[in-house]
Amino acid sequence: MKISVIGTGNVGRVLAAKIAQAGHAVVIGTRDPEATLARTEPSPTGAPPIATWHAEHRNIALVTLPEAGDHGELIINATAGTGSLAALHATGPHDGKIIMDVANPLDYSHGFPPRLSVCNTDSLGEQIQREFPAARVVKTLNTMNHMVMVDPGRLPGLHNVFTAGDDAGAKATVAGLLQQLGWPVKDILDLGGIQSARGMEMFLPLWLDILQSLGSWDFNIRIVRPEQPG
Amino acid sequence: MKISVIGTGNVGRVLAAKIAQAGHAVVIGTRDPEATLARTEPSPTGAPPIATWHAEHRNIALVTLPEAGDHGELIINATAGTGSLAALHATGPHDGKIIMDVANPLDYSHGFPPRLSVCNTDSLGEQIQREFPAARVVKTLNTMNHMVMVDPGRLPGLHNVFTAGDDAGAKATVAGLLQQLGWPVKDILDLGGIQSARGMEMFLPLWLDILQSLGSWDFNIRIVRPEQPG
Repeated sequence: MKISVIGTGNVGRVLAAKIAQAGHAVVIGTRDPEATLARTEPSPTGAPPIATWHAEHRNIALVTLPEAGDHGELIINATAGTGSLAALHATGPHDGKIIMDVANPLDYSHGFPPRLSVCNTDSLGEQIQREFPAARVVKTLNTMNHMVMVDPGRLPGLHNVFTAGDDAGAKATVAGLLQQLGWPVKDILDLGGIQSARGMEMFLPLWLDILQSLGSWDFNIRIVRPEQPG
Repeated sequence: MKISVIGTGNVGRVLAAKIAQAGHAVVIGTRDPEATLARTEPSPTGAPPIATWHAEHRNIALVTLPEAGDHGELIINATAGTGSLAALHATGPHDGKIIMDVANPLDYSHGFPPRLSVCNTDSLGEQIQREFPAARVVKTLNTMNHMVMVDPGRLPGLHNVFTAGDDAGAKATVAGLLQQLGWPVKDILDLGGIQSARGMEMFLPLWLDILQSLGSWDFNIRIVRPEQPG
């Protein structure tokens, strides 16, 4: 499948690399590829310059947002949540396409811990679906660190990834992609329509508190039920 | 220890019964004990009339809120979140006492799923701490169904309960009480100050979506880490 990842941060990089490895035709979209590649300083989150990463991933072209929109049948939103709508508007109309939204609407303007810029009665996933009504939005993977997203086997035993979206076909395609990332199908829990993006995004404050308590991002949650022996 | 449970719903009942069983002197506080005991219809959540329950738990007195305030060294807030502040004000000044807050600020006035009446930049736990600055508030147990609260062994293997509060001594007392409810000490994860009540309460929308997806309230979450073998 032709897949475009929007966003050059850690999340976009690991997703693009793992998805390309699985055999898909992947590009990464960014506002100004030349300027992005010319950067020599690490990103605000400490990621090495994208040029360093790109030298090791020559099979993944860095393209403009409209080029990424043209390329992808499936668009992965891996931008910072507060800039997602603007970036997706620059990427294309997305008509008929699947938008796999892995972003979180974290607002760091008041310091740490961040607040959510939208929650409770709305969510980023719903906002994207409303802005692009002819696209099929699926929220997923936003409830964990990016290293866990693409390598669930790094954690022992069962743990879960959620999906939410209004289109069953789009969710089936995304579930297939999640399996190619290493997620056993039994660990993918569908929560229903795109409104369930609210709960998935509102989990972030607890996720951040757990991170601070453990002193590590290397965790995920497992839904423990009576049916699943220990 | 002298413990007062505020609230006569399912949560208050199971907590009172299990804590009394562990040997504590427990009362349940409610606005009008006589009127509450005179009710013959089930509660809005389908719980049997409290008189039926009380006939089987004669060792747990049903008292007024001020009487409950006088009795308890530790006050458990098991009221509906939107009425918690009013109920706690009627219960007492709480000076020097521990308030163990297990409530969620769920607002059902717009239908199902409920919204949170406070979130993101504040929480019920923080509101209670601000209203009663001489009390020591500990948020806990609000992230699961009441049957799991008092019987964690009904689910296999490891799963977690969180605590948040500004007073280390109060958290140690609450952790002891959680152990008496059946929680292994290693499964109790302290998230820090009372501000972490935000994340614990904001987990509720995801919890409700998981409940709807599974068709069961009989689950909890486990934090899966590399150190814990499957």
